[in-house]
Amino acid sequence: MTGTIEAAGPDIAGVLNRLADAKPAALDRLFQLLSIPSISTDPAYHDACVQAAHWCAEALRDIGFEARVEATQGKPMVVGHWRSSHGSASPMHVLFYGHYDVQPPDPLEEWDAPPFAPRLDEDPRHGTVIVARGASDDKGQLMTFIEACRGWLDVAVTVLIEGEEESGSPSLAPFLSVRGEELKADVALVCDTGQWDENTPAITAFLRGLAFSEVTIAGPSRDLHSGIYGGPARNPIRVLTDILAELHDADGRVAIPGFYDDVKEPPAAQREQWRALGFDSDGFLGAIGLTEPAGERGLTVLEQLWSRPTAEINGIFGGYTGPGTKTVIPAKATAKLSFRLVPDQNPRKILEGFRQFVESRLPPDASVTFAGEGGSPAIGFDPATPAFAATAHALSEEWGKPPVIVGCGASIPIVESFRSKLGMDALLVGFALDDDRIHSPNEKYNLRSFSKGIRSWARILGELGKIDGHDRA
Amino acid sequence: MTGTIEAAGPDIAGVLNRLADAKPAALDRLFQLLSIPSISTDPAYHDACVQAAHWCAEALRDIGFEARVEATQGKPMVVGHWRSSHGSASPMHVLFYGHYDVQPPDPLEEWDAPPFAPRLDEDPRHGTVIVARGASDDKGQLMTFIEACRGWLDVAVTVLIEGEEESGSPSLAPFLSVRGEELKADVALVCDTGQWDENTPAITAFLRGLAFSEVTIAGPSRDLHSGIYGGPARNPIRVLTDILAELHDADGRVAIPGFYDDVKEPPAAQREQWRALGFDSDGFLGAIGLTEPAGERGLTVLEQLWSRPTAEINGIFGGYTGPGTKTVIPAKATAKLSFRLVPDQNPRKILEGFRQFVESRLPPDASVTFAGEGGSPAIGFDPATPAFAATAHALSEEWGKPPVIVGCGASIPIVESFRSKLGMDALLVGFALDDDRIHSPNEKYNLRSFSKGIRSWARILGELGKIDGHDRA
Repeated sequence: MTGTIEAAGPDIAGVLNRLADAKPAALDRLFQLLSIPSISTDPAYHDACVQAAHWCAEALRDIGFEARVEATQGKPMVVGHWRSSHGSASPMHVLFYGHYDVQPPDPLEEWDAPPFAPRLDEDPRHGTVIVARGASDDKGQLMTFIEACRGWLDVAVTVLIEGEEESGSPSLAPFLSVRGEELKADVALVCDTGQWDENTPAITAFLRGLAFSEVTIAGPSRDLHSGIYGGPARNPIRVLTDILAELHDADGRVAIPGFYDDVKEPPAAQREQWRALGFDSDGFLGAIGLTEPAGERGLTVLEQLWSRPTAEINGIFGGYTGPGTKTVIPAKATAKLSFRLVPDQNPRKILEGFRQFVESRLPPDASVTFAGEGGSPAIGFDPATPAFAATAHALSEEWGKPPVIVGCGASIPIVESFRSKLGMDALLVGFALDDDRIHSPNEKYNLRSFSKGIRSWARILGELGKIDGHDRA
Repeated sequence: MTGTIEAAGPDIAGVLNRLADAKPAALDRLFQLLSIPSISTDPAYHDACVQAAHWCAEALRDIGFEARVEATQGKPMVVGHWRSSHGSASPMHVLFYGHYDVQPPDPLEEWDAPPFAPRLDEDPRHGTVIVARGASDDKGQLMTFIEACRGWLDVAVTVLIEGEEESGSPSLAPFLSVRGEELKADVALVCDTGQWDENTPAITAFLRGLAFSEVTIAGPSRDLHSGIYGGPARNPIRVLTDILAELHDADGRVAIPGFYDDVKEPPAAQREQWRALGFDSDGFLGAIGLTEPAGERGLTVLEQLWSRPTAEINGIFGGYTGPGTKTVIPAKATAKLSFRLVPDQNPRKILEGFRQFVESRLPPDASVTFAGEGGSPAIGFDPATPAFAATAHALSEEWGKPPVIVGCGASIPIVESFRSKLGMDALLVGFALDDDRIHSPNEKYNLRSFSKGIRSWARILGELGKIDGHDRA
C-alpha cells in the first residue's frame, strides 16, 4: 500500500448526519428515476431514455453540478462537473460512471406489480426492499453516489451517465474519443457491482469480457406447409439446433477451434484465495433452483464464474411461436449468443471463430447471416494503488470489516474503455446483492443497500480527498 | 371397376351453363367468406370463427339446404342437408366435408396486402389469382363444392363444415360420436387436396398421418443474468437444442427408438408408378429456393413425401427474442414439433416414444413438460370402388384426361375419423396447386381452379347420381 492516508479527515460525522436527515427525500428522488421506463434495447422506449437523461442532469444541477445532456448516435450522455473547493493545490479528481438505461422487463406476467411503478416491499430476509426494474441495476446504485455528493465534495468530480449499457454501449467509444480530455480524471469510480454478502463490502478487481452476436439460418425461400414439404425440405430450425448442439463438448468446454488459445489458468495462489472465501456453492445454485454446476467439468462454481469463458444462447426463435399448432417449416431461425471472456481473449477473434464454426457446419441449402456483433475484453486491477487502498479503508470504516477483493462474471465494457482510451483505472464498488434479481422479474434493491451505499460513497470521497497529488496514479 | 355408370346423365350442359352465368356472384360470395379472419389457433379470433360458421350456414340455406350452426367445446360446426328429388328409390347420399378456419397469417410483414382483404391479382404463370389467407386452404376449395350445389343436386347431400381443422380438430371426434347417425352417408367428399399439375386433376388415395406436441424444458427458477450466473447455471435453451439435435441420425432418419417399427416399405409396383409420373424434383425444390432433398438419404422426393414419416421442428422460442441484446439465461425454452406418419404408425405410440426420448436425455437440473399433444393416423383408399371410379370419370370429362392417383404428405384427420367412426370411405378431390402458398404469406388460389373446381364437382355429383343403390359401398 503506497498511498498516503491522513489519520483524520474532514467532518465525516457531520456529513453522515446530513445524509441521514435527507434520506426520505433521497428515496423520493430514486422513485422518480425508477418510474421512467428507460429500456435502451427497445426503440419503442427511446423517448423514455431521453427523459431519464434529462432527469439525471437536473438531479446533478440541483446539487450544484454544471450538467448537460449531449446527443449521440444512440441514447444521450449526461455529463456533469463539480470543482472542488479543497484547499490543496491539486485536489484529487474522480470520474464517476453510471448508466440510466435498464433491461427490458419481460416476461411481464412474472412481475408481482408493474416494473416501472417503484414500491417498497417487506422481504423476509432483507427487510424493506425497493422493487422496480432498475432498482439495483443501475439506477439504485447510481443514486447512491449522486446522493453522497449532496453530503460533501472534497474532491473534483466529473459524472458521466450513459443510456446504452444494456445495449453494449455502442456510443461510448465514439464519445470518449471526442470528449476524452474533458472526462479524464485520476481514477474512475463505477457503481455497477455487488457486495460479497449483505454485511461484507467488496471491491471488484476482475471482470469477464463479453462478445455477442445474432445468428440467423435461412433455408427455403418462404415458410412451408410441413405436410406438403416435410421430408425433402431443409428446416432452418433443425440446422440451427444441430449447430448449436455442437458448441460445447462432453466436458462442457466450448468447441470453437482456438477458443481457449489465449486463456490463462488462474495462479494457484488466486485459486487458494477463492477457496478460502468459503463460497456457498449450494446456496448460490439453490437460490436459483439448481443443484449442480453446469459449466466445465472439474471446476468450482467460483472458478467457472471468475476464471473461465463461456458460450451462452441468450435467445432463440423461429417458426410458429403463438398459441396452438402450426405445421410450418419456416424460412429462417435465429439465435442470440454471447460469450463471456477472460483476460487476453480478443472479442473480435472469438466472434470470427464463431462465424467460422457455424459456416463450416452449414448443410446444403442453408445460409447464415450474423448481426448485432459487439463486445469488450476482460480486465483486472491492481489492489496496491493509493486510490484502491483509500477506498478499501473507507469501506472498512463503514462496514466494520475490510472489503473482499473479488472477481465478477459479468462485463462492464466502460471499464475497459477507460483504461484503453483514457489510461485510467477504475474502482468498482457496488452494493448489489446476488439475489437482487437484476435482469429478472421483481428486481429489488435493499433499502439498506441504498442508505449504506450513500454513506459508503461519502466516506470514499472523504478518503480520496486525502490522497497527496503525487500519489494519485 | 364394379360400379354401374350410366351412358347418359341428366342435362350436364345446362348445369354448366347455369354455373357459368353465376360466376361473378360466386366470386363475390367467396370474397365475403375470405374477409372473415377465422383463425382457429388464436383465441383472439374466436368471434370471427363463429361469424364464418354463420356465414356458411346462410350460404347453404340460400341454395335450399336446411342448415344450422351447432356449438362445440371449441369452434362451432355447420351442418346442412339437401334431400334429393331423384326418381330412384334410394338416391346416392354423400357427405361433403370442409373447414372454414384458416392458418394464422403471420409473418404479416411478408404479405403484399392485408391477408383478410381478398383481391384479384395477375400472376405471370397462372393468370388471374385470388389472394387472401384461406383463398386455397380451405375457403376457396370449400366454395367450389357449395357453388356446384347451386347447379343441381341429383344426390342427397349432407354438408359438414368445421372450424378447427388447423387446430387439430379437437371437437370433431366428440361431434361424430353424438351426430354420427345424422352425418353418415354412402361416401364422404373432401375438397382439401391438390391437382397433379395445373392441367391434370388428381384423386388422393393416400395421406400421411400427424402427431404433434409442444415440449418445454425448464432449468433455473427464474431468468438469470448470464454474467453473474453464466458457466455454472444450466441453460434450458442449450438443453433443448442438444436434445433436438439428436432427433435425426446422420442419414436423416428419426432417432427415436421404435419410430420405424410399424413402417412398411412401399411395394415395388407403387414405387414404379411414382417414378413413371416423371415428377420434377428439381422444379419442386427450386420453387421454394432449395436444390437437394433434405430427407432420408437415398430416397426420391416423392418417396420422402408419400411413403416416409418425418419429425419436424415447427417452432422454437426461449430467452430474449426482441431487438438488440439481452444477456439472459432463461428459465425455460420451448419447441413445437410434429411428426408426419405413414399407415400403421400409431400417433399415441409415436408421442410416447418422443416423450421417452426427451426424458432420457435430460441433464441434471432440467425438467420437461409436454403440452398440446394430438394427432391422427395415416390412411389409404381403394381406387376400385364405384364412387371412386365415378369421380375419376367425371374428372376425366372436365379436364380431358384421367386424374392421377397420388399420395399426399399432409394430413386430413377427418378422413381417418370418417373411416373409424362412421365406416365411410372418402374421395379426396381438390384443385389446389403446389404453389398456392397455403400456410404462407400471399396465399393464392387460381381463378381457374375456382371455376373449373365448381364445374368438376357438378360433374362428379352427376356421375355419383347414376350409381345404383346396391353398388354404393
